Amino acid sequence: MTNPLLDDRDVAFTLYGVLGAESLLGLPHFEEHSRETFDAFVSVAARFAREAVFPATRALDEDPPRLVDGRVLVSPRLHTLWPKLREMGVIAAARPFEVGGQQLPLAISTAASLYLMAANPALFGFPGLTAGAAHLIEEFGSEALKALYLEPMHEGRFTGTMALTEPHAGSSLADVSTRARPAGDHYLISGSKIFISGGDQDLSENIVHMVLARIEGAPSGIRGVSLFLVPRLRFGVSGLEPNDVGVSGLIHKIGWKALPSVVLSLGEGGDCRGWLVGAPHQGISCMFQMMNEARIMVGANGVATASVAYHESLGYARERPQGRLATSKDPQLPQVPIIEHADVRRMLLRQKAIVEGGMSLLLQTALYADRASHAATEGERQHAQVLLDLLTPVTKSFPAEKGFESTVLALQIHGGYGYTSEYLPEIFFREQKLNSIHEGTTGIQGLDLLGRKVVAHNGAAMRAFAEEIARTCERAAAAGVAASWIGALTGAAVEVSELTKELAQRGRSGDVEGMLCHSADYLELFSTTVIAWQWLLQAAAAREAMASGSSERDFLEGKLAAAQYWLRTELPRVPALVTLCRENEDSYLTMRPSWF
Amino acid sequence: MTNPLLDDRDVAFTLYGVLGAESLLGLPHFEEHSRETFDAFVSVAARFAREAVFPATRALDEDPPRLVDGRVLVSPRLHTLWPKLREMGVIAAARPFEVGGQQLPLAISTAASLYLMAANPALFGFPGLTAGAAHLIEEFGSEALKALYLEPMHEGRFTGTMALTEPHAGSSLADVSTRARPAGDHYLISGSKIFISGGDQDLSENIVHMVLARIEGAPSGIRGVSLFLVPRLRFGVSGLEPNDVGVSGLIHKIGWKALPSVVLSLGEGGDCRGWLVGAPHQGISCMFQMMNEARIMVGANGVATASVAYHESLGYARERPQGRLATSKDPQLPQVPIIEHADVRRMLLRQKAIVEGGMSLLLQTALYADRASHAATEGERQHAQVLLDLLTPVTKSFPAEKGFESTVLALQIHGGYGYTSEYLPEIFFREQKLNSIHEGTTGIQGLDLLGRKVVAHNGAAMRAFAEEIARTCERAAAAGVAASWIGALTGAAVEVSELTKELAQRGRSGDVEGMLCHSADYLELFSTTVIAWQWLLQAAAAREAMASGSSERDFLEGKLAAAQYWLRTELPRVPALVTLCRENEDSYLTMRPSWF
Repeated sequence: MTNPLLDDRDVAFTLYGVLGAESLLGLPHFEEHSRETFDAFVSVAARFAREAVFPATRALDEDPPRLVDGRVLVSPRLHTLWPKLREMGVIAAARPFEVGGQQLPLAISTAASLYLMAANPALFGFPGLTAGAAHLIEEFGSEALKALYLEPMHEGRFTGTMALTEPHAGSSLADVSTRARPAGDHYLISGSKIFISGGDQDLSENIVHMVLARIEGAPSGIRGVSLFLVPRLRFGVSGLEPNDVGVSGLIHKIGWKALPSVVLSLGEGGDCRGWLVGAPHQGISCMFQMMNEARIMVGANGVATASVAYHESLGYARERPQGRLATSKDPQLPQVPIIEHADVRRMLLRQKAIVEGGMSLLLQTALYADRASHAATEGERQHAQVLLDLLTPVTKSFPAEKGFESTVLALQIHGGYGYTSEYLPEIFFREQKLNSIHEGTTGIQGLDLLGRKVVAHNGAAMRAFAEEIARTCERAAAAGVAASWIGALTGAAVEVSELTKELAQRGRSGDVEGMLCHSADYLELFSTTVIAWQWLLQAAAAREAMASGSSERDFLEGKLAAAQYWLRTELPRVPALVTLCRENEDSYLTMRPSWF
Repeated sequence: MTNPLLDDRDVAFTLYGVLGAESLLGLPHFEEHSRETFDAFVSVAARFAREAVFPATRALDEDPPRLVDGRVLVSPRLHTLWPKLREMGVIAAARPFEVGGQQLPLAISTAASLYLMAANPALFGFPGLTAGAAHLIEEFGSEALKALYLEPMHEGRFTGTMALTEPHAGSSLADVSTRARPAGDHYLISGSKIFISGGDQDLSENIVHMVLARIEGAPSGIRGVSLFLVPRLRFGVSGLEPNDVGVSGLIHKIGWKALPSVVLSLGEGGDCRGWLVGAPHQGISCMFQMMNEARIMVGANGVATASVAYHESLGYARERPQGRLATSKDPQLPQVPIIEHADVRRMLLRQKAIVEGGMSLLLQTALYADRASHAATEGERQHAQVLLDLLTPVTKSFPAEKGFESTVLALQIHGGYGYTSEYLPEIFFREQKLNSIHEGTTGIQGLDLLGRKVVAHNGAAMRAFAEEIARTCERAAAAGVAASWIGALTGAAVEVSELTKELAQRGRSGDVEGMLCHSADYLELFSTTVIAWQWLLQAAAAREAMASGSSERDFLEGKLAAAQYWLRTELPRVPALVTLCRENEDSYLTMRPSWF
């Protein structure tokens, strides 16, 4: 069976049937679009992903970048794929016409990206990072910088990077120590950056690094960090010339191998020029725009890799004969395909619930982003922004964490074959692990969710979320979804809401440690509830489609089974987690380093 | 910090303080031993593992076996390590003096093995498989076979394998199709075997394959499978001569790389001789002795790999500075080691609870095996055997599944560095994944536990287990362990016991599907309770040691914290799982293949 990467039926069902993405067409910003232009964009990406990218999976994994004479050289296959990817216009798909974009909703460009990421996350790293960097310049850069850089970046002639991390400053960006010394219209940059994805390669004419650095005399900590555009080659009188950006090392990642991870040395020769983007000392808040987009992209990667792995194991389970049913063990009978075994179906249904539930949340979040930017009224935009902010840590971490578990199940279903490099799951298994680490570890997402997001705006985000859930429950009831499912979600949502108020109060009373100690459990129970919300939405849409006589009966039955799975096997895990947070079980809070 | 592989304090504390392994010295079989001979054996293994094996980790991973002219050649490093390992006498450590063994308890030889497995699971595969094969010959082989093979196997001049799996028959051994045709004192074997660990190599003089095959005219299914000894070289008039055992392929595993996984072709030239071991058609029940030992060895590997990974991340967390505490964010202050962050301590304590709880169960199981063979009375031996049988699927699968999760946490603690091959966790991550697959997948263990073990002997195993728990609770109460911890275990044990009766009744009433549908959840809830039992035992022993004025105060406080963690954060997950099994939530039972 050919791996479809994603189920086309599911992408369309979720975008339109579940989430009503067509309603975006009523907004002025998207008025030149139609369902047809949306679908055309997605299907071009899907075809390219399936026919050109996915077949190169093993080859790209086995031919990582090499550092030769101070430059990073990438696989010849990337040189073949990259120009075609550029031509599709994926980099600027969601940017406005006026800067050369296609002015598509983020929800649509994300759906298209999912296919490309599923086919190869490393390849998609190049356009993804370039889009993020260009968006930063578009938003915060001077007119001069925009004029020089936006067009070549949107066309993919230049690529972009995020150059945040330093050897001693990863999660703690307050400790960035790269320096910037004023020198006329620019600054002289010096320092070292590590783990810079796409930090060097021989694919594009130029590389534009978005660099966090500290202007001389700046305050210490996060409030003294500024953002700079530091190109590998700068514009000189006779064209592009070197900008003293050196490659001092290549990191050997265990997955995403086609995307080089580079150690950069900036200004070793004293002549590395950077141009300020945004106001001085506001680098972190500018960068957070890119980081939030990157977090949603990480969530998309988590969904995409879990999806390709799911479909690989689904195909295998349909074809691999092994054993017989507990109810008919006669050895004279032929063996059955392993999908006939209940425990294999459990692993498949769990994957389906994670993959499709995660995708539903991802596209929901992308739609909030679209409405936050383009909804008709300021009130609607703010409402969507609040929900976008709230859901971003979940959209980032759920597909990373549960998507990893899901990917591991795909390997497990392959049995001994799954443990070999003759089959693909071991690649997905390595690719997926990155998603819980980059762009803020899962631990950081938990702290962000509980420490900032749910308590933001004096609880407005949680109230908006409760309204969304209430609306979903109404829709589900109208569609004829089982009352017990609706009640399960309502009950969990109330528990989460009450717990959140208690924890917020604990924080306000000065017990920050007690508020945040179980942030990992909070993230898990919150995410489980969020995904249950999406599955109730999916169930409602499935019932609606059935009622309207859809011919996709099997597909819709599968949706209801997956919804049942999540609502009845996962959601009941929430109360024990709520108790942990509430009682603040203190084993690791009190555990001293010397006790280990 | 040097990685200790295992914490010596913990090994001694668990063996003697928690499990009372010294009581074995009162049994006639072990009367020539002493605490000193036990400790000497373990410490020699620990030193060799730390000083010689562990430093070769990366090299062994990067130099996998090669197939050259029909033979498998292993890394030169293995040629250096293997003779030293043989000299330590690990192969026959637990076998009687009369067959050249050291007559050590399995609990002691397992403790020693843990260090070697932690240092390199692939290397330990050679003695582990040889010991299992030799034990089969010792138990079921003819005197002639024993005379020829036992001594060279125990000395490691010959190595052994388990040759069960065929391309179409992995989990389903009923479908083994390798044939055996009677030919005088031997049989002529023909067929193909796959995934044969150590199936060929250039380390030992000879390789002894324990092969499942079907005698001509045997009944179909599991009751027609016999066990054969099939050597690579057979004894001929002028010494060892070829036995028509060919290597038709090498499988490229993603971990355990130093241990070749081989495709064998038996009898392509029509002259592959096999000697029957045990009675005809009794191959599966003979092989189950080896398989049960192998399952315990897999559990040991799970513990060992999780342990080395835990210690790697503990060392890293003590040394890696990053960020500041939520309560003192002043950027002028130096960064703190990440172990100071509560969420990092959560990941470390979770690992500790899994590693040390898993090791406690493993050594407990090994002690039952020792008592099943050597206890003073038949009643005591039977009692121990019943508990050994009951716990084997848990001892196999818990360290594999939760040990994998634990190993992933070790990688996560390393952040971006953990995702690179410059650091070790990615190796442990790949090594660990095998343990949920080989020697019966986790799914198979769940079916074995619920479908066979807990219902065996009309509930006698569960009654014996309940008695063990009651005894532990008494000990914990006497030691002054918190009543709430004891109550938590008691409550869970009652729930598990009642659920088991209900499910058994469901099976007896003919609803086998309904009984087994949630076998994965049952395995998880049962395992969680079993590990809680071990942690209550550990807590009791820690309190006893504190009361007797132990100087290891920090270590004992850490034990209590880990016990609290398991009893208060993991055990409360049991009720929701019990409900799933009881209500038999039916999403994947009813899910049809066409609905995916």
